[in-house]
Amino acid sequence: MEERTIHMELCSSRKQKPESSQLEFGKVFTDHMFIMDYSDELGWHDPRIVPYQPLSIDPSAMVFHYGQSVFEGLKAYITPEGDAQLFRPEKNFHRLNRSNQRLCIPPIDEEFGIKAIQQLIALEKDWIPTAEGTSLYIRPFIISTEPYLGVAPSRHYKFIVILSPVGAYYKEGINPIKIAVENQYVRTVVGGTGEAKTGGNYASSLKAQEDVAKKGFAQVLWLDGVERKYIEEVGSMNVFFKINGEVVTPALNGSILEGVTRNSVNQLLKHWNIPVEERAISMEEVYEAYKNGTLEEAFGAGTAAVISPIGQLAWNDEDLVINNGETGDLSKRLYDTLTGIQYGRRDDPFGWVVKVDDSNIHLKASV
Amino acid sequence: MEERTIHMELCSSRKQKPESSQLEFGKVFTDHMFIMDYSDELGWHDPRIVPYQPLSIDPSAMVFHYGQSVFEGLKAYITPEGDAQLFRPEKNFHRLNRSNQRLCIPPIDEEFGIKAIQQLIALEKDWIPTAEGTSLYIRPFIISTEPYLGVAPSRHYKFIVILSPVGAYYKEGINPIKIAVENQYVRTVVGGTGEAKTGGNYASSLKAQEDVAKKGFAQVLWLDGVERKYIEEVGSMNVFFKINGEVVTPALNGSILEGVTRNSVNQLLKHWNIPVEERAISMEEVYEAYKNGTLEEAFGAGTAAVISPIGQLAWNDEDLVINNGETGDLSKRLYDTLTGIQYGRRDDPFGWVVKVDDSNIHLKASV
Repeated sequence: MEERTIHMELCSSRKQKPESSQLEFGKVFTDHMFIMDYSDELGWHDPRIVPYQPLSIDPSAMVFHYGQSVFEGLKAYITPEGDAQLFRPEKNFHRLNRSNQRLCIPPIDEEFGIKAIQQLIALEKDWIPTAEGTSLYIRPFIISTEPYLGVAPSRHYKFIVILSPVGAYYKEGINPIKIAVENQYVRTVVGGTGEAKTGGNYASSLKAQEDVAKKGFAQVLWLDGVERKYIEEVGSMNVFFKINGEVVTPALNGSILEGVTRNSVNQLLKHWNIPVEERAISMEEVYEAYKNGTLEEAFGAGTAAVISPIGQLAWNDEDLVINNGETGDLSKRLYDTLTGIQYGRRDDPFGWVVKVDDSNIHLKASV
Repeated sequence: MEERTIHMELCSSRKQKPESSQLEFGKVFTDHMFIMDYSDELGWHDPRIVPYQPLSIDPSAMVFHYGQSVFEGLKAYITPEGDAQLFRPEKNFHRLNRSNQRLCIPPIDEEFGIKAIQQLIALEKDWIPTAEGTSLYIRPFIISTEPYLGVAPSRHYKFIVILSPVGAYYKEGINPIKIAVENQYVRTVVGGTGEAKTGGNYASSLKAQEDVAKKGFAQVLWLDGVERKYIEEVGSMNVFFKINGEVVTPALNGSILEGVTRNSVNQLLKHWNIPVEERAISMEEVYEAYKNGTLEEAFGAGTAAVISPIGQLAWNDEDLVINNGETGDLSKRLYDTLTGIQYGRRDDPFGWVVKVDDSNIHLKASV
C-alpha cells in the first residue's frame, strides 16, 4: 500500500506537566492527539497529529445512541537509558481489528496504527513520566460518527489516539485487593461482545462495581452468563489461580477478553516450566481448593495494574482469605519480570518491547 | 421542586424542510434541540433550547470509551384538527429513568422532561410532517461527558433531545417482513443490560443484523442467551405470536426491553377480550404450532413501525410461512387502532395521547 504521511499541526503553547507524585489514572492528557477519519468513499484517510482539543460531533452521531465503538489500552515506558518503548503494541492493534470485526467497524492498517502511535509518542516523549511505576497511558479508540438514527453500522468513523501520563498503580508497592464474586449481574455472555473491547461491556459492569465498592471491595469477579458457575474475569482484568502448584486461567470461550498481559503471563509461566492450563474453572472448584488448602495464589492480570494479587475473595457467605491476604511469590515474580521488561530493566527474551524511534521527530515537527 | 425556566436561544435562519415524499428515518433534524447538563455539584441544570448544532466534547469523555449512555424514542403526530400530540410520553420517561438506574446515570425529573419536549415540539411544530404515516421522531438521550478514562460512573452528563421528521414506515401500507432466527449471536442476557435502552445492546446487534441482511432478511429474531431456546425480541421490536386464538408475547424476564407499543398491544387485546399471555415461549413451541396449523399470526411491535407483521420466519433449515405471508387480521386491527389513536383519528379510551400546548410558544420564543 501507499506510504501515508501523517500531517502535523503543533500547538502554540505547551501545557504544564503534573508532578509525578500527583499523577492519577486518565485525568490529564498531553498536548497533542492523533486523528484519522473513515468514510465509505475514502476509506481511512487524513491521518494527522493535532493539538489536543474537543471533538465537534453531531448530536445524532451513532456513537451517542448505539454504542458502536471500540478501544485499546497500552503504555509507553522510559528505560534507564532514557529511551521510550512500547510493550507488544502489535497485540493491541490485532485485537483492535478483532473488536472492529465484531462491531462492524472497518479494519485499520495495524502497521500504520503502530507507526502513528510511535510518531505521536516521539513528539510527546517528555510527557512520559520517569518516576518508579509511572508511565504514559495510550488510548487508541474508534467512534462511529455518521449523523443517522437508523440502527445499522455507521458509514463514518474517527480513529483517535490520546495520551495520559499515569501514576504508579500501587503507591506503596504491589498490594493484594479484596474482590467479591458477582451473582446478580453479568458482564456479557457467549454470543455477545465479551471478546471485543467495546464500550457496552464496560457500561454493563458499572452497576455491579458500584454495588460492591459500597461494601469495601475493589473489584467484582464475573461468572459466566449461562450457568453462573464458571469464572470469567475480575473487574477489567483476566484472572489466574494457582492450585497445588499448577496455574489455571479461564479459557477464551468467546465471552472473555484476550488480554495482552494474560498472554504474556501464560508465556512466562511456560518459559519457567510452571504448569499452566487454559480451561473452564468454576467458583466451586476454587472454593474446594481453598477448603483443602491447595489454593495457593490468585491474581488479576491487565495493562493498568500488570499483576493484581487477590488477597480476599467473597463468595455468597464465604470469605476466602488467599495466601494469608499477602502477595504470593508467583504474583511477585510475574510482576517484577513483566514490569522489568516493560521498563527496560530486564532482558527481553521474547522480543516484546518496541523502541520508539524519536530521531526524526524534531525535523518532522518543524515542517 | 422549584419551577425551572427553559432558556431559549433561537437560530437566525431556518433550514429548508424536506418534501414529505423524500422523508427517511432519522437523517434530517429540525432547527433546534434541547440540552440540560448534569454535574455532581449542581445536579441537572441549565435547561435550554438552542439551535441544532454539533456537540463539543472532550475526546476522553466516557461515552466514547465505556458506552455509558441511554436513549428513548417516541413520536409527535399531527391530528386532523392540526394539533400536535404525543403518545404515552410518560412511559418513555419512566423507562428512561429505569435505564438510568441500570447504567448508574442520575435520574431526571420525568415531568420536567415531558415539559421540555412539549416546549421544543411547540417551537418546531411546523416540522411535523402531515402526510399519511409521517411523524416527527423524538430522540431524548443521555451521554456521559466526564473527561476521565477510569472505569467508573461519570460525574458529568448531557441530556439532549433532537427531533427528526420521518416518513411512513410502510410506503405502500402495512406489509409483512421476512425474519431469521439468530443462532450464533445474542443480544443480551439476564443480568446484563437487556431491559435498559442503552447503546451497547444495539452495538452488539449490528453484526447479526448485517449477516442476515445479506441473505435477504429484514430483521433477526433473538433467542435467550442462556438456553438459546426462548424467544426474546425481533430486531429492535417486541414480538407477539397468535396461536390457536390466543396471543403470546415473551414475559419481561430481565433481558427484554419493555416496549411502550408492547404494553399498548397488551392493553388493547385485553380491552377486546382477546386472550393474551406474557410468558416464556420457545422457538420449538412456535414451530410445533406452525406444523399443526395453529400459528395464525406473528408480528413485531415498536415505535418505528408500530406493528410489523412477520410473513416468513427462517429457523435452521425450516422456512415458516405465516398466514400465507400476508398481514393478519389482528395485526391490521392493532395497527389501525394504534395509529388511529396516535394521529387523533380515533377515540382514545385509555387516555394515551397528550396534546402539545403551543399557545404560549411564540411569546416565549420572542424573549
